[in-house]
Amino acid sequence: MKLYSRESSGNSYKARLLLGFLALPYEKIEIERGGDGRNALPADYLSLNPRGQIPTLVDGDVVLWGSTAILYYLALTHDGQRRWMPAGARAGAEVMQWMELAQNEILSGLAIARGIIRWGFKEDLAACQAKGLKALAVMEARLSRHEWLAGAQPTIAECACFPYTALAPEGQIDLGPYPGVRGWLGRIKRLPGFITMPGLSIGEA
Amino acid sequence: MKLYSRESSGNSYKARLLLGFLALPYEKIEIERGGDGRNALPADYLSLNPRGQIPTLVDGDVVLWGSTAILYYLALTHDGQRRWMPAGARAGAEVMQWMELAQNEILSGLAIARGIIRWGFKEDLAACQAKGLKALAVMEARLSRHEWLAGAQPTIAECACFPYTALAPEGQIDLGPYPGVRGWLGRIKRLPGFITMPGLSIGEA
Repeated sequence: MKLYSRESSGNSYKARLLLGFLALPYEKIEIERGGDGRNALPADYLSLNPRGQIPTLVDGDVVLWGSTAILYYLALTHDGQRRWMPAGARAGAEVMQWMELAQNEILSGLAIARGIIRWGFKEDLAACQAKGLKALAVMEARLSRHEWLAGAQPTIAECACFPYTALAPEGQIDLGPYPGVRGWLGRIKRLPGFITMPGLSIGEA
Repeated sequence: MKLYSRESSGNSYKARLLLGFLALPYEKIEIERGGDGRNALPADYLSLNPRGQIPTLVDGDVVLWGSTAILYYLALTHDGQRRWMPAGARAGAEVMQWMELAQNEILSGLAIARGIIRWGFKEDLAACQAKGLKALAVMEARLSRHEWLAGAQPTIAECACFPYTALAPEGQIDLGPYPGVRGWLGRIKRLPGFITMPGLSIGEA
């Protein structure tokens, strides 16, 4: 398998996290950041990924763009016990709730606030931070009473929600008021096969 | 089953579309729009849905917030043939690609452009329209060569991507340059069980 990825990208890190937890070998191909802080994408990459974002997974003739699809695919093909993406309707749907949060308030809030501070993205910092705090409140409500986001063990929801939550301080968002979230960040860090990324702030409870 | 929904909400319509295609009976509970054009949510609703958005599905003791989770759950519980959410890893992951697009460029582009025009959302119209055009280009690349987004028949990816694409003209986005997308909108409209919503513009190819 080949993963087109960038070391400082939280979206790429979602896929790398699961590849680590599943102990899967893969070739990592680094995609550079462009001068405007966004992605600089070679033309041949755009033929693999018409959305023009990272990561992209290539596994034989399977080409998948977007972290949600990649996490889902890896969990179904390389985890025979279906721990990371449960087979049941309700359990799977509860994972999907958090996959959607990862693509909404976590991404448009926490991740973009980080992009504004780190790379000068031209967006509204206060609005992104407010959206990010909303994501943290939703996670805290769950994680103050449960160890994991969906069900009783870690799933791909953890891989999807961990990166930009752990990176939130880079967007000048304080994780102090969220002890449930900080405890969860620490639990993920201690899972077998965990890998880190640059800039990661993991405040353990 | 109860669906907390709003008639003018494209996100709610995603769930209603699949309930229609699967010919499932359900009770629809209307959530009003607030004075600022966003959602006005009763306090008891927030106990069901801590994210504070619509739709929410309640099926016995199952409570699911977010259209992705609801579509996934309905497809797994009420479609024994797994046509709407294929069981295979690759086929399912291809559905997930489009579910992610629906939660990104389609939502933050096409849907928010519509919210700015229709309800005065305080966001950047030109930026949202540009993001929306990117979503349309990605869909057109697929739909100019295939009938459906993922695989050879309609899936929950259609339910997730149809609403805000069909509503794009309400955000002053012209679907004229996207004949593949327009043909696909027409095919969805002709599926058995299709229901409509207010403001829907379906330009058939």
